[in-house]
Amino acid sequence: MSQPEQSPARPTIKAVAKHAQVSYQTVSNALNAPERLRPDTLARVLRAVEDLGYRPTQAARNLRLQTTRLIGFRSTRSGGRDIGAIEDRFLYALTSAARDRGYGVILFAADGDEDEIAMFEDLVSRGAVDGFVLFGSHRHDARTAWLAERDVPFVSFGRPWEKTAFEYSWLDVDGHAGTLAATRHLAAAGHRRVAFLGWPEGSEVGDDRYAGYLAAAEELGLPTRGLTVRGLNGIGDGTKLAAALLDKAHPPTAFVCVSDAMAVGVMHAVEHRGLAVGRDVAVIGFDDSPLATVVQPALSSVRQPLESIARQCVDLVLERIDDPRSAVTTSVVEPTVIARGSSDPTHPAPDDEA
Amino acid sequence: MSQPEQSPARPTIKAVAKHAQVSYQTVSNALNAPERLRPDTLARVLRAVEDLGYRPTQAARNLRLQTTRLIGFRSTRSGGRDIGAIEDRFLYALTSAARDRGYGVILFAADGDEDEIAMFEDLVSRGAVDGFVLFGSHRHDARTAWLAERDVPFVSFGRPWEKTAFEYSWLDVDGHAGTLAATRHLAAAGHRRVAFLGWPEGSEVGDDRYAGYLAAAEELGLPTRGLTVRGLNGIGDGTKLAAALLDKAHPPTAFVCVSDAMAVGVMHAVEHRGLAVGRDVAVIGFDDSPLATVVQPALSSVRQPLESIARQCVDLVLERIDDPRSAVTTSVVEPTVIARGSSDPTHPAPDDEA
Repeated sequence: MSQPEQSPARPTIKAVAKHAQVSYQTVSNALNAPERLRPDTLARVLRAVEDLGYRPTQAARNLRLQTTRLIGFRSTRSGGRDIGAIEDRFLYALTSAARDRGYGVILFAADGDEDEIAMFEDLVSRGAVDGFVLFGSHRHDARTAWLAERDVPFVSFGRPWEKTAFEYSWLDVDGHAGTLAATRHLAAAGHRRVAFLGWPEGSEVGDDRYAGYLAAAEELGLPTRGLTVRGLNGIGDGTKLAAALLDKAHPPTAFVCVSDAMAVGVMHAVEHRGLAVGRDVAVIGFDDSPLATVVQPALSSVRQPLESIARQCVDLVLERIDDPRSAVTTSVVEPTVIARGSSDPTHPAPDDEA
Repeated sequence: MSQPEQSPARPTIKAVAKHAQVSYQTVSNALNAPERLRPDTLARVLRAVEDLGYRPTQAARNLRLQTTRLIGFRSTRSGGRDIGAIEDRFLYALTSAARDRGYGVILFAADGDEDEIAMFEDLVSRGAVDGFVLFGSHRHDARTAWLAERDVPFVSFGRPWEKTAFEYSWLDVDGHAGTLAATRHLAAAGHRRVAFLGWPEGSEVGDDRYAGYLAAAEELGLPTRGLTVRGLNGIGDGTKLAAALLDKAHPPTAFVCVSDAMAVGVMHAVEHRGLAVGRDVAVIGFDDSPLATVVQPALSSVRQPLESIARQCVDLVLERIDDPRSAVTTSVVEPTVIARGSSDPTHPAPDDEA
């Protein structure tokens, strides 16, 4: 029997393979799927493992403890196409936070809740993940019920919008507080006719943001009649909705928008009329997406603390994985108004920021 | 022994669990990790499986065949923060294409090549993936060598920029052809003084795009002296570089840019001078990122066919997984000039497009 190699570095699978004169894959099989090897080959590899004092990584040990160290996450429809979307940034933050805890993310495409549940079933039945992080929530959400019934560890970024028969851990951003702060911000700059551009009624997140605007208007005694409009998300929709408001006899001087895309649309409508965004008309968006710093002047927006939310999502789902009976945690996070040139003409231009 | 339930639907794990009066997780264990169950429990579950005629999904069968049906992919640094980046769109396309072939994507964070290799080692040693898709390539790329040496199936979106001792499958976009076509497009509209805004020398992709511009200038007899500048990627950098060129005695009337972010920066510099983009100065970017349709006028750009590339990446890596000795495939894809208002003032405004 040969002596262990005198190497200061920890022996690797590669060194074991060389020592046993087998391929890398054969060593991997010996450690993970020994039944695939001929008994004499297996014996030879295991002898090399012992000779070299090879120790599998933490991950490999975890595998034998039947944990996958993987969290499932549905791939977002946005995929960088919807420029105002926060999903890509959240996924990146989630992957980084998971890595810091020794976890990877299984990303899967799914088209709607039912399809996402089919993927849950697939991944769970294969034992391919330890738990899931959900993105977004809405009424009649069948996903949380499916996971809760089966005691699959999960956490949701997005609150339950109705009473559920079961409890689960979730985090959410307080949209109401966000538009309340945005409206106060515009009123503090002297605006009285503040419009709201929202999503169609029935969108839980959109209605929450609308309610925050209404609460601020009531608190500050601002008019809202004829100043609130709703439309689909998108720059073009924002332009059309804002144009209709600006055509009125008493047009608004400021706009609170349910999203950054809508707000950029408002900016286009204002510029089409030869007015200056920031100086003549103030605009504030929601999400502080990358869009906000692309336009000129830069767009004020309500920022969601995605990095910290992603980190907490990982912490919470790992808690459930470690102990499926651990207490449920729920948390509503306050967003922050980021003031830029679109609502504050004294703010430096975006080029000076970069 | 009870009769199978008369259900038109395929029996599910849940039905098996109910029938055997055990939890969902216990059924999953019986199928995937039978050694974790007490023999009598295992026997009860397997009887229920037989009674109901339960058939594991394709995925569960694959698990037993020792394939993971997972492809590894490094999470991009962009994460929606770099608004002109194509990584998010590629990842989405990759996940969709993988799903169509019954595969999921394991996304992992990594900070540089060495760290990415550490993640390869971790995932391969755990038997957690069947192969990898790499994004981006550069000289002295240690990742491809690591994977090739170990016969780990992979494909690279990004060509080898030097001769390697081993062969592997890759796809890439022809950046040279892209800027060549972009420069011809501007010259066809009558521009003679066409500037190029590039990345610092030594970036393989940047140098390739620069060479395409030079080739077009030579072909068309356009001047290039004093018309090419280089800087880091970003809107602010684009603005500063373009401002310096526009201050010259003989400023350019058109700009070919190495990225959309640089091109948006050029648009800002042009507007600062009270000139109209599209009418007075033409601008074209590269990548056709979401940025291109946010600005006004919309930005002309060179489009990479990411969806088709992602699909081919999945096809090629699955080929290697099925047969590690299968032939290596390499392919350079031609990008396409997408003309919009920034280089063609007759083009409809972005609002009309939406």
